Amino acid sequence: MDPNQPSIPANSDIGTQRDTHKDFKEHSVAEFFKKNKHMLGFSGKTRSLTTIIHEYVTNSLDACDEHGILPNIKVEIIEIGEEKYRIVVSDNGPGMPKNIIGKALGKMLAGTKFHRYMQQRGQQGIGATGCTMYAQITTGQPFHVLSAHNGKMLSCDIKVNLKTNEPDMVIIGEQEASYHGLTVEAEFGDVKFDKSSYGVLEYLKKTAIANPHAQIELVAPGNEYYKFSRSIEIAPKKPKEVKPHPLGISVYDLQAMAHSSKEPKLSGFLVDSFSRFSPQKISELKEIIDVDFSKSPKELSWEDSEKLVKAIQKLKWIAPPLDSVIPIGKDQIEKSMKNILDPEFINVVERDIKIYSGGIPFAVEVGIGFGGKINEQKGEIYRYANRTPLMFDASGCAIANAIKEIEWKRYNIDMETDPAVIFVNISSVHIPYVGAGKQAISDIEEVQQEIKNAIMEAARGIKISLGRKRKVGDMEKKKTALLRYISRLSEDLANLAETGSKDDIQKKLTKIIETKYMTNMVGEEEAKPESSGAGEGEENGGEKEE
Amino acid sequence: MDPNQPSIPANSDIGTQRDTHKDFKEHSVAEFFKKNKHMLGFSGKTRSLTTIIHEYVTNSLDACDEHGILPNIKVEIIEIGEEKYRIVVSDNGPGMPKNIIGKALGKMLAGTKFHRYMQQRGQQGIGATGCTMYAQITTGQPFHVLSAHNGKMLSCDIKVNLKTNEPDMVIIGEQEASYHGLTVEAEFGDVKFDKSSYGVLEYLKKTAIANPHAQIELVAPGNEYYKFSRSIEIAPKKPKEVKPHPLGISVYDLQAMAHSSKEPKLSGFLVDSFSRFSPQKISELKEIIDVDFSKSPKELSWEDSEKLVKAIQKLKWIAPPLDSVIPIGKDQIEKSMKNILDPEFINVVERDIKIYSGGIPFAVEVGIGFGGKINEQKGEIYRYANRTPLMFDASGCAIANAIKEIEWKRYNIDMETDPAVIFVNISSVHIPYVGAGKQAISDIEEVQQEIKNAIMEAARGIKISLGRKRKVGDMEKKKTALLRYISRLSEDLANLAETGSKDDIQKKLTKIIETKYMTNMVGEEEAKPESSGAGEGEENGGEKEE
Repeated sequence: MDPNQPSIPANSDIGTQRDTHKDFKEHSVAEFFKKNKHMLGFSGKTRSLTTIIHEYVTNSLDACDEHGILPNIKVEIIEIGEEKYRIVVSDNGPGMPKNIIGKALGKMLAGTKFHRYMQQRGQQGIGATGCTMYAQITTGQPFHVLSAHNGKMLSCDIKVNLKTNEPDMVIIGEQEASYHGLTVEAEFGDVKFDKSSYGVLEYLKKTAIANPHAQIELVAPGNEYYKFSRSIEIAPKKPKEVKPHPLGISVYDLQAMAHSSKEPKLSGFLVDSFSRFSPQKISELKEIIDVDFSKSPKELSWEDSEKLVKAIQKLKWIAPPLDSVIPIGKDQIEKSMKNILDPEFINVVERDIKIYSGGIPFAVEVGIGFGGKINEQKGEIYRYANRTPLMFDASGCAIANAIKEIEWKRYNIDMETDPAVIFVNISSVHIPYVGAGKQAISDIEEVQQEIKNAIMEAARGIKISLGRKRKVGDMEKKKTALLRYISRLSEDLANLAETGSKDDIQKKLTKIIETKYMTNMVGEEEAKPESSGAGEGEENGGEKEE
Repeated sequence: MDPNQPSIPANSDIGTQRDTHKDFKEHSVAEFFKKNKHMLGFSGKTRSLTTIIHEYVTNSLDACDEHGILPNIKVEIIEIGEEKYRIVVSDNGPGMPKNIIGKALGKMLAGTKFHRYMQQRGQQGIGATGCTMYAQITTGQPFHVLSAHNGKMLSCDIKVNLKTNEPDMVIIGEQEASYHGLTVEAEFGDVKFDKSSYGVLEYLKKTAIANPHAQIELVAPGNEYYKFSRSIEIAPKKPKEVKPHPLGISVYDLQAMAHSSKEPKLSGFLVDSFSRFSPQKISELKEIIDVDFSKSPKELSWEDSEKLVKAIQKLKWIAPPLDSVIPIGKDQIEKSMKNILDPEFINVVERDIKIYSGGIPFAVEVGIGFGGKINEQKGEIYRYANRTPLMFDASGCAIANAIKEIEWKRYNIDMETDPAVIFVNISSVHIPYVGAGKQAISDIEEVQQEIKNAIMEAARGIKISLGRKRKVGDMEKKKTALLRYISRLSEDLANLAETGSKDDIQKKLTKIIETKYMTNMVGEEEAKPESSGAGEGEENGGEKEE
């Protein structure tokens, strides 16, 4: 297009000539999120309080897990006015060093999580600072922190400067310490504690279920005390930082990574930066594209980056290393569902690691609890991502979608009326959340289908348990009915036969009936192949429900 | 709490001592939105293209309206590869000066819209730069701009430095120009042009309906040409920047505004910064709180700010000035629905300005089109905020909620099967959007109820038109049936009476029947009070459906 010829002629009258551009201003990301605080989960008073607790508990769990510490977390919520609370969250984690504590809690988009390719609960480096902001805009108070780290205990106050997104930190004291841990303490307005299904208590209960290695205590307003004890004494595997898989890379990211690489050659950069990128793969690429692999990666052009990405799609690759994904584990989920929900039946399914969007590994675990102490909860869904409960925005979530798609009557479960809890956890370095609120999983097809398969597998196990229970019930009824006739029948038989006593006959008949129903039950059950596995190992390969 | 006593004792074993904090980094808001691009509307190829066109067209319309220019906007979409398009959007707006063009299109959270209290389509200062980012991450290409402003034509290339959120701008040429306008041109990958209801053509059609003062042209791939002509020649009232109303202020914002005020006294600051804050109001406040109004506003404490906000709620206030709200107008909507949709019936309702959240004025307009050239669209909803079509996320939107709540059968409209379009526009300085994607209106009660009332008012008018039409149809049928007998009857009468000719009798009978049905129709219609207004003026005061 010719710069001298804009395709539309100008108007003759430009109206008032007030230069509106003098109002041009720059804003900080902190101002943005103050204006859009609902994007961080600050919408509604109950939800806002849950968001606050969620951010701190999540950070504590991440810090403990990364250091192999069994977490002890204590949450205190003290009412100090109308819809005003003081919140104190303490952990036994590693604490934070002086040089980063201000930025970690008083600057948005700063932290260790945004850029590392590692499975953690937090991902964005916004949440904790969002809470600092919320405290100061609702009560004007700074955020108080006690950090015991590396032999030192630091006490300080932190605010976010919303205009600049920089922390204002005031150090109150510093001294030797022989322990470690972090305590955050702040006052919040425009929040409300209640025991609804969106509230803090429910959030912590759900967190405890997915984190059986953690001990979580809550002191609720009115000094009500709750404790979720550890049900296993083993810390989860430490999350590992992994290199991205070649199949998941975009043209832009490949070029950007190349331009900031220190490797002298493009080939070295590729082998060094990605998992599964061997010199053998470089040779294979050389055969199909004319890119100079001995050039500096800093010179990688858009065109060459595009060629590389296209060629990469054509090669065969080993799947990404799976040890970046850390599921909770079948036994752990079983123990903690037993511990906290105590249902009559539990069936937990831990599926193989799968891949989405070409290169991102993820794993789905499903536990279904049925009956027993579960009675108020009718077909309730506990959604989790990396062990963190997703409490809001269920309607747009792949987990909710998957559950909706299942024909539950095939599993003899009525989601409207039966006492059932469906626990679903997805683990991945990169959880595909729908928004910054991190409350729903995107409906990426591979992910949603895998969730569905996992739930169906777990449901089959419950179906078998339910079937067995119902059969036992039926047998019991028949036996009872038959036994009702025995006394009369034995007497009549004794009279008719004129030999033997009524008691003898009755004993014999009873034994016959009892043996028959005993044998039949065991026999019928064992004859069925279904009953062997309760869903294990029979659905690999992604069987789909019609 | 005692800093020496963290409430949880430390673990004896802190695990590996690797200091994870060395990975602590800061990130730019541009990196954040690159990672979370779905938050800006970049999710799905069709939607991404619509988002791009939306951002440019919106900016053009805002710029033209602010300068009183009747907008001419031309959108060209040229296919240049697989899911790759060159997009050119040109307008006859004021153009942009050299000193801000880089930041406006190459830096996020920079612009004139974020902080001004003024009704505009854009609000956040992210959208256009989001497009620049999307161009460069999908094609590696910079964004090309031609800006004719104030007698100069500037040609330049712009990129966002994602690491720093700073613009990289390369000036290509600069020369005299006797016209004004802005042309943006860029190449995008990972987008798709189609004619679905989420596509660009539908978006522009809907934009044209709500902007009858704009001419919008589209050159679609394959050189298909579409033109939406202006249906009115008057530019809308220019948006006015207004001061916030005292009832809408938070404790934090009041303190922050006070601290950056240059007024010597708190009283002066209040009168100067808010609408409706007279010296009389200061006297009233003095009577109920002990705040020193002669102090510098820079010294306003949180406690005093809190006292002020509470006291403000207790006073009586005149409503905020309503001239900040600029609805489209009844005639304008009628003309443009006629022009573009051409239904058989139209009923447009322009409601009085209302207030939400204590101090924010807003106005709702509703147009219902029924029948005529609308035949494919069954009960379709056209949602708008400040004349901008909302294309996505309908399910969470107050407009969709309001429509769902209405008992449509009361209006003889079947939303499943009838050819009807419900047009709803909400105008406000501050549209309460659900997210940064700006595609849904929050379900704030006052807003949703007002939308519902407006739709019901419009639906009543359509009900009357439909009733009249159906009655006319019924009458026609009866008349035709009677007229079928006249010829035979006239002949028989002539024979029986033995006087008069058949023709005479037939003429007289025909006249009687026609007069009867004519009179009846008019008479019955006029006798009904309902028919006078077609919904105007009868529902002020927020009548609720029950």
